[in-house]
Amino acid sequence: MTLDTGLLSPVRAGVPVETLTSDEAWLRAMCAAEAGLARAQAKLGTVPAGAAEMITKVAGAESFDLADLAVRSRGAANPVVVVVQELTARVAAIDPAAAQYVHRGSTSQDILDTAACLVAARVLELVRANLAELTDALAELADRHRLTAMPGRTLTQHAVPTTFGLKAAGWLHLVRQVDDRAAHLLSSLPVQIGGAAGTMAAYLEHAALHGDGVLPDDYAANLITAYAQEMGLCEPVVPWHALRTPFLDVAGWCALLTGALGKIAVDVQSLCRTEVAELGEPAAAGRGVSSAMPQKQNPALATMIRAAALQVPGLVATLAHCMLAEDERSGGTWHAEWQPLRECLRLAGAATHTATELITGLRVHPDRMRANLAITNGTIVAERLSAHLTPHLGKDEAKRVVSAAASRVTEGGTTLAENLAQEPSVAALFDIDMLKRLLDPDGYLGAADHLVERALISRVAPSSNTGGTQIR
Amino acid sequence: MTLDTGLLSPVRAGVPVETLTSDEAWLRAMCAAEAGLARAQAKLGTVPAGAAEMITKVAGAESFDLADLAVRSRGAANPVVVVVQELTARVAAIDPAAAQYVHRGSTSQDILDTAACLVAARVLELVRANLAELTDALAELADRHRLTAMPGRTLTQHAVPTTFGLKAAGWLHLVRQVDDRAAHLLSSLPVQIGGAAGTMAAYLEHAALHGDGVLPDDYAANLITAYAQEMGLCEPVVPWHALRTPFLDVAGWCALLTGALGKIAVDVQSLCRTEVAELGEPAAAGRGVSSAMPQKQNPALATMIRAAALQVPGLVATLAHCMLAEDERSGGTWHAEWQPLRECLRLAGAATHTATELITGLRVHPDRMRANLAITNGTIVAERLSAHLTPHLGKDEAKRVVSAAASRVTEGGTTLAENLAQEPSVAALFDIDMLKRLLDPDGYLGAADHLVERALISRVAPSSNTGGTQIR
Amino acid sequence: MTLDTGLLSPVRAGVPVETLTSDEAWLRAMCAAEAGLARAQAKLGTVPAGAAEMITKVAGAESFDLADLAVRSRGAANPVVVVVQELTARVAAIDPAAAQYVHRGSTSQDILDTAACLVAARVLELVRANLAELTDALAELADRHRLTAMPGRTLTQHAVPTTFGLKAAGWLHLVRQVDDRAAHLLSSLPVQIGGAAGTMAAYLEHAALHGDGVLPDDYAANLITAYAQEMGLCEPVVPWHALRTPFLDVAGWCALLTGALGKIAVDVQSLCRTEVAELGEPAAAGRGVSSAMPQKQNPALATMIRAAALQVPGLVATLAHCMLAEDERSGGTWHAEWQPLRECLRLAGAATHTATELITGLRVHPDRMRANLAITNGTIVAERLSAHLTPHLGKDEAKRVVSAAASRVTEGGTTLAENLAQEPSVAALFDIDMLKRLLDPDGYLGAADHLVERALISRVAPSSNTGGTQIR
Amino acid sequence: MTLDTGLLSPVRAGVPVETLTSDEAWLRAMCAAEAGLARAQAKLGTVPAGAAEMITKVAGAESFDLADLAVRSRGAANPVVVVVQELTARVAAIDPAAAQYVHRGSTSQDILDTAACLVAARVLELVRANLAELTDALAELADRHRLTAMPGRTLTQHAVPTTFGLKAAGWLHLVRQVDDRAAHLLSSLPVQIGGAAGTMAAYLEHAALHGDGVLPDDYAANLITAYAQEMGLCEPVVPWHALRTPFLDVAGWCALLTGALGKIAVDVQSLCRTEVAELGEPAAAGRGVSSAMPQKQNPALATMIRAAALQVPGLVATLAHCMLAEDERSGGTWHAEWQPLRECLRLAGAATHTATELITGLRVHPDRMRANLAITNGTIVAERLSAHLTPHLGKDEAKRVVSAAASRVTEGGTTLAENLAQEPSVAALFDIDMLKRLLDPDGYLGAADHLVERALISRVAPSSNTGGTQIR
Repeated sequence: MTLDTGLLSPVRAGVPVETLTSDEAWLRAMCAAEAGLARAQAKLGTVPAGAAEMITKVAGAESFDLADLAVRSRGAANPVVVVVQELTARVAAIDPAAAQYVHRGSTSQDILDTAACLVAARVLELVRANLAELTDALAELADRHRLTAMPGRTLTQHAVPTTFGLKAAGWLHLVRQVDDRAAHLLSSLPVQIGGAAGTMAAYLEHAALHGDGVLPDDYAANLITAYAQEMGLCEPVVPWHALRTPFLDVAGWCALLTGALGKIAVDVQSLCRTEVAELGEPAAAGRGVSSAMPQKQNPALATMIRAAALQVPGLVATLAHCMLAEDERSGGTWHAEWQPLRECLRLAGAATHTATELITGLRVHPDRMRANLAITNGTIVAERLSAHLTPHLGKDEAKRVVSAAASRVTEGGTTLAENLAQEPSVAALFDIDMLKRLLDPDGYLGAADHLVERALISRVAPSSNTGGTQIR
Repeated sequence: MTLDTGLLSPVRAGVPVETLTSDEAWLRAMCAAEAGLARAQAKLGTVPAGAAEMITKVAGAESFDLADLAVRSRGAANPVVVVVQELTARVAAIDPAAAQYVHRGSTSQDILDTAACLVAARVLELVRANLAELTDALAELADRHRLTAMPGRTLTQHAVPTTFGLKAAGWLHLVRQVDDRAAHLLSSLPVQIGGAAGTMAAYLEHAALHGDGVLPDDYAANLITAYAQEMGLCEPVVPWHALRTPFLDVAGWCALLTGALGKIAVDVQSLCRTEVAELGEPAAAGRGVSSAMPQKQNPALATMIRAAALQVPGLVATLAHCMLAEDERSGGTWHAEWQPLRECLRLAGAATHTATELITGLRVHPDRMRANLAITNGTIVAERLSAHLTPHLGKDEAKRVVSAAASRVTEGGTTLAENLAQEPSVAALFDIDMLKRLLDPDGYLGAADHLVERALISRVAPSSNTGGTQIR
Repeated sequence: MTLDTGLLSPVRAGVPVETLTSDEAWLRAMCAAEAGLARAQAKLGTVPAGAAEMITKVAGAESFDLADLAVRSRGAANPVVVVVQELTARVAAIDPAAAQYVHRGSTSQDILDTAACLVAARVLELVRANLAELTDALAELADRHRLTAMPGRTLTQHAVPTTFGLKAAGWLHLVRQVDDRAAHLLSSLPVQIGGAAGTMAAYLEHAALHGDGVLPDDYAANLITAYAQEMGLCEPVVPWHALRTPFLDVAGWCALLTGALGKIAVDVQSLCRTEVAELGEPAAAGRGVSSAMPQKQNPALATMIRAAALQVPGLVATLAHCMLAEDERSGGTWHAEWQPLRECLRLAGAATHTATELITGLRVHPDRMRANLAITNGTIVAERLSAHLTPHLGKDEAKRVVSAAASRVTEGGTTLAENLAQEPSVAALFDIDMLKRLLDPDGYLGAADHLVERALISRVAPSSNTGGTQIR
Repeated sequence: MTLDTGLLSPVRAGVPVETLTSDEAWLRAMCAAEAGLARAQAKLGTVPAGAAEMITKVAGAESFDLADLAVRSRGAANPVVVVVQELTARVAAIDPAAAQYVHRGSTSQDILDTAACLVAARVLELVRANLAELTDALAELADRHRLTAMPGRTLTQHAVPTTFGLKAAGWLHLVRQVDDRAAHLLSSLPVQIGGAAGTMAAYLEHAALHGDGVLPDDYAANLITAYAQEMGLCEPVVPWHALRTPFLDVAGWCALLTGALGKIAVDVQSLCRTEVAELGEPAAAGRGVSSAMPQKQNPALATMIRAAALQVPGLVATLAHCMLAEDERSGGTWHAEWQPLRECLRLAGAATHTATELITGLRVHPDRMRANLAITNGTIVAERLSAHLTPHLGKDEAKRVVSAAASRVTEGGTTLAENLAQEPSVAALFDIDMLKRLLDPDGYLGAADHLVERALISRVAPSSNTGGTQIR
């Protein structure tokens, strides 16, 4: 029975993140967590080195019948119990003495939480690699189109001119913020090590019994450190079985990432509209085809990114609810985290992959941007005229005069320049040539070029991992 | 690569709904939708009967490489385009003429939406079968424990006595409401048939060209009817490519169902607490075991149900957002629906299966209920005393006297009866025996028995599908 | 301190639903619930008729210091305790004996849940009145524009022609579905009457003590009936303190409503875009103005509706989570419902009001629709050509030929007709005049007119309250 | 009409954050944003100093009819347009020339976004002050109860012993993580300054016209800097009209905060249960009273905190959806942010206030903890026995023997020690005294004391603002 191959989630079908978040990957991570735990204990002398080696070897090599494991997981409501059974049996088949040390002192949640952080770390590394390519492509777009004028659109209407470079610079800034946080998040993912109820009691008890019954005072601290080192993860201050910041952090970051990419996607869709046609998705065989219409070139990449971005907020809300984990370990809020966390990571990774494909091949049509700037017959620069009339007429009267003229232009026919030239109060100040010059969109790009530069420069020295990156 | 076997969602691992919502099931439903469309057209004489037969035969028999289809689905951002390609090729290999009629006049969304409704219908039927068993078990519990007194608990504190039968009757009522809606929902799931932009134009054009160019006025209506009949689904009034009521209905119903079962689960968890121990989950080998603690009997079934219930609300929110589908078909909101819809159905079906397992084997401990009624030394019946004193002392003074006595009881030692017997204003009215009789929990069960009866009776004639079921 | 006047929620500022959902309205509903309870008991002879009259009189007349009540509500974590204190004191000031009967046998949740259902019922009635006007306006739009051709747009691209009438018919159908459910929902909102832990014990105890200590067997049932009659609400089967279907039903319906109106809003926004300009919002002084740009005519109504629709899904998810109410009454999930429920109702009512304003004054520009149909030089009808070529060339070759020609058209210059006329395989079949005729958008409207009729007719006999309305 | 006084949200009624997030506070922040903008321009010499002073004076002094402003806000779908009208009129009444400089070059979103960041900053400062008190109280609890043994509970069942100090240390760590992020977040909240479409064009145009038409190259940068300084907020890299990281950051932090406090609340509720009674809420007149039951002491504070925590996740999901802001400014996603953002801040601030009240007065009952440790007759220490038997019997046999004995204990009667003493394989190893010593809960607290110390020490040097705080 093939349950899920991505058929209902094309954004991630066959994309690298799919492998990193598969059941196989989770199982490997659980095995790695068991092996790392044995090695950490061996390092401190409380598990025989040979046993740790054997556990590591078997944990890394064996393949399991995942469907069978999954069904048997219903017994304990989590997969670790059966994974431990299987792993123990396989170690025992080779080295019965070593099998005694599998999962020693541990509890299911230590293994599954550590495995989840491993999976998240691998996804974060992959995403960061994609983001490096994506931010390069965005920086190039921003730089190349610094002066490519296009209509700025607000509340669906032409507002004032902007540049495509500034739009790309905004995308760049957004994505870079997410990447800065990824770096930080990656360095903060902790191992989980608490034992049955977070006191580490069984770890200590087994360790003491292994030796002469006396443990150094700092054994618990040393075990935390050793385990973190073995797993390449961070040391927790205290066990976090019911203190769920790390998973909400991961999911929150995924929402920020897919939100950023989703913003790019809705912009691309807006500018790909048939009537607008300022952007086009990269062409590829079979890309954007319709099952019905021969002429269609659908923005398929933006569609998939937007679809991913629409799914993540609900999943984050679930993980936020799971912060309310009662007691030392919750019967339900922990179990509700796994699938939404995986889906967040999968959609985040897939959206990044797809956005990179989209942006590196994006087709920009400056001619269409210019044509669209002209369709309102100059009213897109009305704000500028209003500014120029203000010192002479006062701001209210200036706005009134220009509004009235703009209305007449919208109703038909002439341009705003021609219209205003027939307005005595305006004609007394500016002749038609001056009006035409003032109403040239290229003359009213404001600080667009400078703002692009800010975004490009801020790339060199990313600093803050929250809110606005500092410029200095 | 095994992506998802249920390892991270034990509630559904190996449970029947998993098969009904698998990629294979969706693919089969898409093929069935294509075949049904050909047969509907054949019925109206606009596709050759032999071609429809051949398409039906191939669509039903062929197996596909799902992973390959999934990856290729990225081209069009949906799986239908490649499914149509594959199906056409396979029909063509046997009967090239018949292959001309695959997907005739259709569009991807007609097929995928119809397939989704088919999948939902199969899940609804399965769930209803489970709910029949579940409601029987709940009715039996309610009936058997009509007079089994237990502490009523509000805001975590003992309030006044209730009965376990009334608790079970509440569960029964809740689940039956959901089942009533399932019946209604099942009869309302529509086929989708609109063609490229919802005008059915290509269906009509091909049909006209197939014959003499002239179609009866009611061809479109007839085609809708024929398609609905072939698929065993309902007729839509108009194409609903961007009118997404049906999917939000399905998801909303799933939230109601998992909410109802989640309520049962949190109640079971509350009553399974070590200190409370009024209920126990059904025992089974491997059920509720811990990887660490030999003595543990975790409420694993309730845990899995609660975990499912915690995941559905976020998914419903996503489907509600997808109502905002712009234009004739949206580039993103449609695509964001598939995976959350599937997950809603899967969790709903799995939670129902698991709840049935839980309730049919639930262990009830009336002795523990009785023991817990006693632990507050009579204060759980304080409200009754207050009522009896009110005619004599007035309600404020009655409440004050009883509150003060209850506080003294809580601080230590004696029972509420003994305490009140030493209160002159009370002693003047009731002697110690009368006080003891008034403070017997069994004497203060209110209308519990009657309310159980209402819930049991209302079962016979379920009527309304929203809000409170009518009692006649 | 003015906490909330709608400044941050313009969609509802000063709109009628605001009054119906204000703190004052909730307080009045709580007072009404207390009064109704006294009258219901009086009807059954267990409270003196005069006391019930006095309570009703005081409850209806008094005004309270809401801010003071709110602050004091923190003590019990709900407002009812202090409302009962105040109400009792005010009745006592006039008639101390009557004051004994305020809140007799009751509990906070009985009053607040009943009040919430009253508030919801008033909002539902208001919304239905608005929906009547809205559906009339939509039906008129659909009827008037049955044959007004416009581009059908899918995934942001021109697809095939449709009509504005069909679009309006889809809106109509969507809104009518919601209205049908409103009718059903309105008739199902129950009173709450359970007493401290849902057994009705104190109601019965006080009633028995009021008389000779013996109550008729059906007293509880009679009390439920009498209370429902007094409040104009439905009878519950059992107390629903922790069985929260009714509130999730209300919120779910709000999501469906704002989803439907939000769909209309995003369509209006799409068609108001400067480059598209097929629709315009109704003009009004100050409507759609910008603080900066003199020429701006922002679609302010659609913007407010969309903003409302974006906020409801998260609120519904909260209410769905609140289904998991543990024990006889939850310490938290109940309390988390009030504000989200009120906000759902407020946004739903406000969006309906605003949508009615939008649709009744909507400006439709058939000339712009026609102009936009022409901008793709005929490729918007490419699907039709493909259908006509299929019998001659086979469907693959037909689609290939038309796709290639459409690509050439997109790249520049000529029309699809001219382009295809130079394709030998096509020219052999159709001359240029025939091609032009086939590529006339008005000739390819499919069943649009018929589908409009279905939507208009289905209005006469609304039947189902879920999924597709039946046509018959 | 009193719309909202907190009657439906007792957690915040009358609490300081309510004032900071009121409509009045938002209006004052908008006025402050206008005044700061004028001063920033004056600083750069492009607005007369006197005009900026006058605007500042009027903006700070005037009071407005909020309800009137709210209703008029419907015209533009945002409140800024009417606020600017009012402010301009009031300045003009005193100094018409100064009125020309109100809102110069600006756009509604510049003002509203800046105002929102001001409001958020004030709330964050308030919350941090509360958190200082809260973390002190938690640290004291953790320190005082390092060795106070209590049952560790997992999946609702007694697991192994823990200490109340370790539980408090976990709460402390959680809350401190949130506080660390608050510091970071506070320093990152940016002003918004982009003008109509984010190019700052009108700011530059007016500035140039004010002088000799020539502006320094770095005028835009200087204006951003000056504005940020005037407002006490951070400089943005680029205008963020449609790049919504800052608001999602604020909301995400609120979810983390209420999630942390909600975790404390559900723990308190779990330990306040009548049967458990290990904790009690601080007593206060009217606190925790029931409208029905004289004996009730409801955990009202925990209830209000939990209710707040349940509401925030849905609101965060809404703000995450609003990241998908199309074009230069969105018609809807921006408008959907205001109310949810305010509600997040309000609930976060109120939950913090309430949690501080709860924790500073929390009543801890070590005697009840000790009594509860005993109720399972030693099985709560079963894991330890299993560890001690493992070297002798192997881990499987050890677990089997202890499980079997634990089952017998659960079924009735004797203690685990007595039961095991009759098991030959165990008796051969340990006598009854040794078994009793091994099964003493106080002897199996693991590293609880050490972990408390880690949490207390890590307080001294908070470092990271994500994930696990580093220990040095």
